[in-house]
Amino acid sequence: MTKLFMLHGVNHNLFGKRDPKQYGMTTLDEINENIQELANELSIEVETFQTNHEGEMVEKIHEAFLTGADGVVLNAGAWTHYSYAIRDALDVLTVPIVEIHMSNIHSREEFRKKSVFSDIVTGQISGFGEESYLLGIRAAVAAAQK
Amino acid sequence: MTKLFMLHGVNHNLFGKRDPKQYGMTTLDEINENIQELANELSIEVETFQTNHEGEMVEKIHEAFLTGADGVVLNAGAWTHYSYAIRDALDVLTVPIVEIHMSNIHSREEFRKKSVFSDIVTGQISGFGEESYLLGIRAAVAAAQK
Amino acid sequence: MTKLFMLHGVNHNLFGKRDPKQYGMTTLDEINENIQELANELSIEVETFQTNHEGEMVEKIHEAFLTGADGVVLNAGAWTHYSYAIRDALDVLTVPIVEIHMSNIHSREEFRKKSVFSDIVTGQISGFGEESYLLGIRAAVAAAQK
Amino acid sequence: MTKLFMLHGVNHNLFGKRDPKQYGMTTLDEINENIQELANELSIEVETFQTNHEGEMVEKIHEAFLTGADGVVLNAGAWTHYSYAIRDALDVLTVPIVEIHMSNIHSREEFRKKSVFSDIVTGQISGFGEESYLLGIRAAVAAAQK
Amino acid sequence: MTKLFMLHGVNHNLFGKRDPKQYGMTTLDEINENIQELANELSIEVETFQTNHEGEMVEKIHEAFLTGADGVVLNAGAWTHYSYAIRDALDVLTVPIVEIHMSNIHSREEFRKKSVFSDIVTGQISGFGEESYLLGIRAAVAAAQK
Amino acid sequence: MTKLFMLHGVNHNLFGKRDPKQYGMTTLDEINENIQELANELSIEVETFQTNHEGEMVEKIHEAFLTGADGVVLNAGAWTHYSYAIRDALDVLTVPIVEIHMSNIHSREEFRKKSVFSDIVTGQISGFGEESYLLGIRAAVAAAQK
Amino acid sequence: MTKLFMLHGVNHNLFGKRDPKQYGMTTLDEINENIQELANELSIEVETFQTNHEGEMVEKIHEAFLTGADGVVLNAGAWTHYSYAIRDALDVLTVPIVEIHMSNIHSREEFRKKSVFSDIVTGQISGFGEESYLLGIRAAVAAAQK
Amino acid sequence: MTKLFMLHGVNHNLFGKRDPKQYGMTTLDEINENIQELANELSIEVETFQTNHEGEMVEKIHEAFLTGADGVVLNAGAWTHYSYAIRDALDVLTVPIVEIHMSNIHSREEFRKKSVFSDIVTGQISGFGEESYLLGIRAAVAAAQK
Amino acid sequence: MTKLFMLHGVNHNLFGKRDPKQYGMTTLDEINENIQELANELSIEVETFQTNHEGEMVEKIHEAFLTGADGVVLNAGAWTHYSYAIRDALDVLTVPIVEIHMSNIHSREEFRKKSVFSDIVTGQISGFGEESYLLGIRAAVAAAQK
Amino acid sequence: MTKLFMLHGVNHNLFGKRDPKQYGMTTLDEINENIQELANELSIEVETFQTNHEGEMVEKIHEAFLTGADGVVLNAGAWTHYSYAIRDALDVLTVPIVEIHMSNIHSREEFRKKSVFSDIVTGQISGFGEESYLLGIRAAVAAAQK
Amino acid sequence: MTKLFMLHGVNHNLFGKRDPKQYGMTTLDEINENIQELANELSIEVETFQTNHEGEMVEKIHEAFLTGADGVVLNAGAWTHYSYAIRDALDVLTVPIVEIHMSNIHSREEFRKKSVFSDIVTGQISGFGEESYLLGIRAAVAAAQK
Amino acid sequence: MTKLFMLHGVNHNLFGKRDPKQYGMTTLDEINENIQELANELSIEVETFQTNHEGEMVEKIHEAFLTGADGVVLNAGAWTHYSYAIRDALDVLTVPIVEIHMSNIHSREEFRKKSVFSDIVTGQISGFGEESYLLGIRAAVAAAQK
Repeated sequence: MTKLFMLHGVNHNLFGKRDPKQYGMTTLDEINENIQELANELSIEVETFQTNHEGEMVEKIHEAFLTGADGVVLNAGAWTHYSYAIRDALDVLTVPIVEIHMSNIHSREEFRKKSVFSDIVTGQISGFGEESYLLGIRAAVAAAQK
Repeated sequence: MTKLFMLHGVNHNLFGKRDPKQYGMTTLDEINENIQELANELSIEVETFQTNHEGEMVEKIHEAFLTGADGVVLNAGAWTHYSYAIRDALDVLTVPIVEIHMSNIHSREEFRKKSVFSDIVTGQISGFGEESYLLGIRAAVAAAQK
Repeated sequence: MTKLFMLHGVNHNLFGKRDPKQYGMTTLDEINENIQELANELSIEVETFQTNHEGEMVEKIHEAFLTGADGVVLNAGAWTHYSYAIRDALDVLTVPIVEIHMSNIHSREEFRKKSVFSDIVTGQISGFGEESYLLGIRAAVAAAQK
Repeated sequence: MTKLFMLHGVNHNLFGKRDPKQYGMTTLDEINENIQELANELSIEVETFQTNHEGEMVEKIHEAFLTGADGVVLNAGAWTHYSYAIRDALDVLTVPIVEIHMSNIHSREEFRKKSVFSDIVTGQISGFGEESYLLGIRAAVAAAQK
Repeated sequence: MTKLFMLHGVNHNLFGKRDPKQYGMTTLDEINENIQELANELSIEVETFQTNHEGEMVEKIHEAFLTGADGVVLNAGAWTHYSYAIRDALDVLTVPIVEIHMSNIHSREEFRKKSVFSDIVTGQISGFGEESYLLGIRAAVAAAQK
Repeated sequence: MTKLFMLHGVNHNLFGKRDPKQYGMTTLDEINENIQELANELSIEVETFQTNHEGEMVEKIHEAFLTGADGVVLNAGAWTHYSYAIRDALDVLTVPIVEIHMSNIHSREEFRKKSVFSDIVTGQISGFGEESYLLGIRAAVAAAQK
Repeated sequence: MTKLFMLHGVNHNLFGKRDPKQYGMTTLDEINENIQELANELSIEVETFQTNHEGEMVEKIHEAFLTGADGVVLNAGAWTHYSYAIRDALDVLTVPIVEIHMSNIHSREEFRKKSVFSDIVTGQISGFGEESYLLGIRAAVAAAQK
Repeated sequence: MTKLFMLHGVNHNLFGKRDPKQYGMTTLDEINENIQELANELSIEVETFQTNHEGEMVEKIHEAFLTGADGVVLNAGAWTHYSYAIRDALDVLTVPIVEIHMSNIHSREEFRKKSVFSDIVTGQISGFGEESYLLGIRAAVAAAQK
Repeated sequence: MTKLFMLHGVNHNLFGKRDPKQYGMTTLDEINENIQELANELSIEVETFQTNHEGEMVEKIHEAFLTGADGVVLNAGAWTHYSYAIRDALDVLTVPIVEIHMSNIHSREEFRKKSVFSDIVTGQISGFGEESYLLGIRAAVAAAQK
Repeated sequence: MTKLFMLHGVNHNLFGKRDPKQYGMTTLDEINENIQELANELSIEVETFQTNHEGEMVEKIHEAFLTGADGVVLNAGAWTHYSYAIRDALDVLTVPIVEIHMSNIHSREEFRKKSVFSDIVTGQISGFGEESYLLGIRAAVAAAQK
Repeated sequence: MTKLFMLHGVNHNLFGKRDPKQYGMTTLDEINENIQELANELSIEVETFQTNHEGEMVEKIHEAFLTGADGVVLNAGAWTHYSYAIRDALDVLTVPIVEIHMSNIHSREEFRKKSVFSDIVTGQISGFGEESYLLGIRAAVAAAQK
Repeated sequence: MTKLFMLHGVNHNLFGKRDPKQYGMTTLDEINENIQELANELSIEVETFQTNHEGEMVEKIHEAFLTGADGVVLNAGAWTHYSYAIRDALDVLTVPIVEIHMSNIHSREEFRKKSVFSDIVTGQISGFGEESYLLGIRAAVAAAQK
């Protein structure tokens, strides 16, 4: 059975509590529920994880590597723009990696346009709000099952 | 009934006949068939269109505007990186616009990293091969029906 | 009798139908009527032309060159920012060329600040809405009759 | 009755005495006479002013603000390229501001291509020699009477 | 009663023990005592906090948000120059944020001149040594009570 | 008795009369009154000065140098971003110099982010509206009395 | 028998009619005659083609690919500097591609120094006037017959 | 007896398990054994430490400072390229600091060419695989015993 | 008799009273005396002038133009780096212009390396302290008498 | 009889002994033989020369100038990218100069894309391996005999 | 028996006679003696060479290539920053190349931070004074014997 | 008796034989005669030297250092813009160094504006033709005798 890691990055525990223009009004728990629902529909397993600590995110990616996950979907939040540590951790993986963003990172502040992961991931999805997560899961499944 | 325009850009009539590393081995007709299949599944209508002429692409986007299409999915190929004419045409639209790419444009030549549309579209999907088209249709439908 | 070419660029057939903040609510036909009215007042002849195809614009400028027009007024729209093909066509001309823009291109997106024609035209007028066209005609007449 | 301020910047008292390739052979007095003639034709009032002192230019713009002028036409000369003080003074105004240049600033030295005012003025006219002044007056009147 | 969070960033536990040219000879405890003294004088409450872990700083800012603090004063140390994670956490806040620095960050290494927070905070104070803290508290109180 | 020079730069005579979003609604006279009030409280002397002429500002700073002022607080307005003449004048001083700004210069136009004084002043305070002046006075007093 | 495509780009139909300093006084027909003469001498076949429409150039290159031409010689004119669409079309080819220019593109305007094709062609020849065409044919033949 | 800290940065716990082209096939434990062997040979003491948490690395460097280590050898991995927090911690030290890298950071991705520590360390060694560690220890001993 | 204008720029009235590392300990009066002494030796006339007001400097250069001075020697101080107004005034002159600096402007702050006059003057002399003035007079005489 | 200098630059004595991917397997002697063969065919004289010393190359170009050679063909190797000394020597010449490269310098390392000669030579040929030499000779002959 | 070339670049014959802050007080002869001592200890052969002539350095590297040296250690001095000729010579080698510097080139002038060799050498060692040479020999031996 | 080295750089043996617009019509011998004449007048000794070989120039500067010359005047020609080797040689000197240029290097090609020596020399003189040499000698004498 295909198993994915859905990794939520820094500040994302505040989803549904902060700037609704950028992040919608749904909480992280509700997003995770939607993901599990889709996982059931697609008959896959998804493990979700959130942290505000870069070191924990790095080690969770190590875990994905060491336990043989079939794919990783990642919304790293602000780390996207500077954490080469997470980049190097991702670079260890040989399975599909899908980088997602709720907001369209290409239409916001200049610094958000640059992702330090984007040249080593399988693909990137940005701008579709909560739907970005579901598209990311579908993309990872398609890539993992190819 | 939701109606989308699926617009294929310059050189894409050669799909399946050129560099398979970047573009896979599927022809444009086969891609369009997959799209129609998904359209049936989602009970929507999709009109597909390909051109190698910037002016025709501009006028097709005008048509989407004037006929009230519910969304546009666009893989503009090389125009993505310089055609401000297409950008201005897209900017007329008030419905969701989904920019897609088969290859991961962020991991190729420097010039491909910059899309002149990306700050005015709803969102961008890149890197998932033929799957990019299906994810793009899903994304447009989700945005159009929100 | 002084004869000018008034050339309208890509997307301008949609004038009066798109973003009124930037382009006003007047259609291209109405703009052309105002131009003809001024032409009558100034006792000159003005031929107007619009196209969404770069190649047709290039060839219309060739026509201005080959038929001996006395001046060219040009609002090239988005082509202003990248079409070196149109620049090279303009560079053939030895009569006055007036570059105009309805909006103030210096106060919009970064890419609009750069015109690839501006260093080879006689002069540039931008920011006065529909009035830009009339000022452009007057400027071309003054330059052509000097 | 519409009242405009026509502001002449640094070194412009030398018009007609310096580099004729860039500035023509007409003196500032002759330019002002042409302006008054047009003012009569358009039934408006134009107050002209020249200074080589940035502080006096700033304070003249304050005067335009405090006395309720209907528009300002400005050829700031070299200040155009660095005087943020004049920019801030102009930014106080809520009436139309027309930035003009006799020469085409986009075809001269690199530093002249950048105007520190251009993103806050109504519009810019450059390259038409003495005619630039008359076009500037017309543009200001059209904008002020809209 | 107005309540502020005074947040001390990475390496600041070493104050008084490192380069006295940049950081003075006062320890963090002594700085906190001076802050409490001023707090008493101004009849406000100040909670102080120091960490060398970005994740803990992010979560402390979340706490300020969730517990309704009236303002945040922050000396983020080296994180100032790259931690978009802390920026995003600060961006959640709707109360005044005062960014402070003991040394004048504009007269040191190039990288220190750029703060990734400075465009979203209320204001910035830098260069006054220990006095920067007291000025920061005063600034936050003034802004919070406005 | 500690004596400070409070120097107000170009356009600041219009305070309270221009864009209230950036500059508040208080006039320069009222700001000076608040400063004198604080001066009394702190038992110091403050001489205030405003000019729209760079040369006069330079010479006032010379006066501060030649008459032995104990510190200078400066809001140079737009000159902050280009007047190396004022920078060189300030560089003569050996007493504390406090650069202040009402608005947060780091969150406005790109050109305002760069101060040509900031690397030679004691410190910089920006973003606290009228309070910036009072914080600046306090900062100068603390530095001058150290 | 070796067969080459000699492709002439935008504005080149005006050869012999425009700026003689850059382009000589020979018409395109005369250039094509010289090319055919050399073709006879080298016992090869050369098909010549000119267009002012980017889309037609793209499709002509497709034709070279689909009909199995042995090499392409291309003077794309102004498209050289921005048409990634033509670049992508050329990139499909597996036969030698020779990029030529009559004038020395490295000694003209800044924008002409950059060719968006140059890193994917076999080689580049520029600066030899009409001779550039004959050298280009020879270069393509040598490469095709290697 | 000379005592060194050998600090291993983020992701280095995976040595021997990831991309062998860049990092060899030796585990971190084996590297540490080689280091201890050399330490014995040189009659020095080496304490080794690895962490994936920036905050722990910062605090370990504090410990080196507070316990009077004679030198620090550091392979900070990806933190090398952005962690100004670690830079500031290192800057506290007055003993030799040796920055090492297994791969040649100057021949990899652009971002790896810049080390944010390199201008404050004693020296840098990069490109010699596992040998980099032994050379680093020797370099630190030589510098510490000078 | 050859007549030169020796123009002293902003802040130079403080010579001998400010930073002796950059400007020596000689006053402007003493420098002028040395210049007059050399003038006598060379049998030329030198008029010296100092101002802190850009407008006055501009008008003094106009005077040099209108009264037919044979050459201008200029140490414009900080204006060197931004006053395009003075540049334009100098550009009117057809006689030799010698730009001088006491300190070596190429070895100081980055902004001092760029002179906005240097491409239109006859030549530049920098770095020889008071001797720069005497060399400048000699250079102007040699150029004026050629 | 037309006489050309064929100048071979630094490291080219190793041709046929180094990286065959970039430089082919032909030695310099063999290349010179091919050149002489073509010279005979074209009834011209070619003097060949190779050096690894910049000063000798400069002086050989002086010799071409002083002895009246009819043209120079130059493959300067790595000097192409930085030797302004050779550029200045070439700039003395008034006969045709042809810059050639075996490899396509536009598709290799970034630094190779810039030639410090290219804006002063007649033309540039790059990318055709040993054929580049023969094309260069032909180009020089055509230019010299025009 | 392993044989290395130890190559000393331009100005290095002055070691021990110039700026002791950057280069120590040891002469080149003494450095060579230390190297020979280590060579004996490691049972290898080292040939040392110094030149101030780029061409001689290039040809010495050719000699290393042609005579089959097992490795090259190089301190090219100032050539490090611009001699692409030496780079191309080094690029011929297939044995280990160790780039060394006595001073830490990353903490000096901006231009010294860039080595034009660093992306093609095995590794780089900088900052350890005379010890850099001994570490370089050890590194080359380790790499050559791997 | 004061002794100076007057060093003439690459290509300068051609003076009087090349582009008279930039370099005048005087030969190097004539320039040296003028220098000796001035030397007699000033009662100093001047040794002149020219070379086209960078290594010889470096070693001549070493000689100036080792023989105790009192000053160096240098016109390095094109080496000015890239020879860090000559810069490092000059940096050894503790006596005055005067950098001179016949033409105004600030008004020519972009690359000539940057001198890699200018921040370590005593001063720079450029633009006065042959007079630059005499001014350079005077400047060196004044600096050497201070």
